[in-house]
Amino acid sequence: MTYPLHLIKLIQALRRLPGVGAKTAERFAFQMLDWQPKQLHETAELLTSLKERITNCKICGCICDVKCRFCESPRGQPHTLCIVGSSRDVFAIEETGEYRGHYHVLGSLLSPMQGLGPEHLNIDTLRKRVTIQKFDEIIIALDSTLEGDATSLYLKQELDLPGVKISRLAFGLPMGSSLDYVDGGTLARAFMGRGQF
Amino acid sequence: MTYPLHLIKLIQALRRLPGVGAKTAERFAFQMLDWQPKQLHETAELLTSLKERITNCKICGCICDVKCRFCESPRGQPHTLCIVGSSRDVFAIEETGEYRGHYHVLGSLLSPMQGLGPEHLNIDTLRKRVTIQKFDEIIIALDSTLEGDATSLYLKQELDLPGVKISRLAFGLPMGSSLDYVDGGTLARAFMGRGQF
Repeated sequence: MTYPLHLIKLIQALRRLPGVGAKTAERFAFQMLDWQPKQLHETAELLTSLKERITNCKICGCICDVKCRFCESPRGQPHTLCIVGSSRDVFAIEETGEYRGHYHVLGSLLSPMQGLGPEHLNIDTLRKRVTIQKFDEIIIALDSTLEGDATSLYLKQELDLPGVKISRLAFGLPMGSSLDYVDGGTLARAFMGRGQF
Repeated sequence: MTYPLHLIKLIQALRRLPGVGAKTAERFAFQMLDWQPKQLHETAELLTSLKERITNCKICGCICDVKCRFCESPRGQPHTLCIVGSSRDVFAIEETGEYRGHYHVLGSLLSPMQGLGPEHLNIDTLRKRVTIQKFDEIIIALDSTLEGDATSLYLKQELDLPGVKISRLAFGLPMGSSLDYVDGGTLARAFMGRGQF
């Protein structure tokens, strides 16, 4: 016994969302059947105009609407650049309040397994940027994964400029973690990176 | 630091989905930014036409497209009626292959807490139906919750017709469950309903 065709199509569309399997997509679709027509139309309109309304900044690659709030307004640390994988990371870092410099969004990480090479990264603008804008420090803020490590090494070679300090985020215990639950790799890195107390 | 306005609106729309909080809605919205324009338009179109393409059967209340596959085709057990809370339950029961009778979808359960009384239930058509169609057995297949219990009791009184057996789904241990993990209420019901082995 299968659902009506239109519902099946909607379920298939919702399955494209991250972490959403068949059961969750079904639950979402049935919930949408209970939405008001107005809510359905509003959501449809948001999806239709998404690509027009949200674009990527030509300088830093981060998502923006009218103008890029990072490139087109003065920053507290104008001589620092933070390189991240995705636009989401930019907002996560801003949220911490620890950093007030510039950003550069790669859009992807190197992944030979997925066939993602340097040509898939937003790196040409980065190369130009580091020669035009004067940066003292470039912070590589990529995932602590195989792909993140590979991309970080690649960037370190590419951005080897005189007078520019290249740093990477610290590795160690996440806050509030218990040693019992931390994996061996993290524990090893936390030992290596130990600081004076 | 907030996201672009259009993205915020999309996140708010996605938060209406069941079990989706702020973080998940953000993840969904960012994923949608990576969708192809074609995929966005298709999904938008599915939402826009959802209410026109999926309607509720005037007889049983279940969702249907062109015609109701339960009311407008012969059923293996034509003299049995199964009352469920939502259309999803109909498909879940069909999936088991245990039942081939008719269905009636209430659309909601009695819930004084949420202000849902008998007038919110698809019950007028049910009353007419049980006098016109000849049923031998009415199976109440509602949730084993407070609302399900209240609605079941209400239906039992309402559908008290001579010669009609009213039954309710069995309560007990879910298949594959371990006694350690089963709650006390379920265990008590499993004891009360124990059968000869």
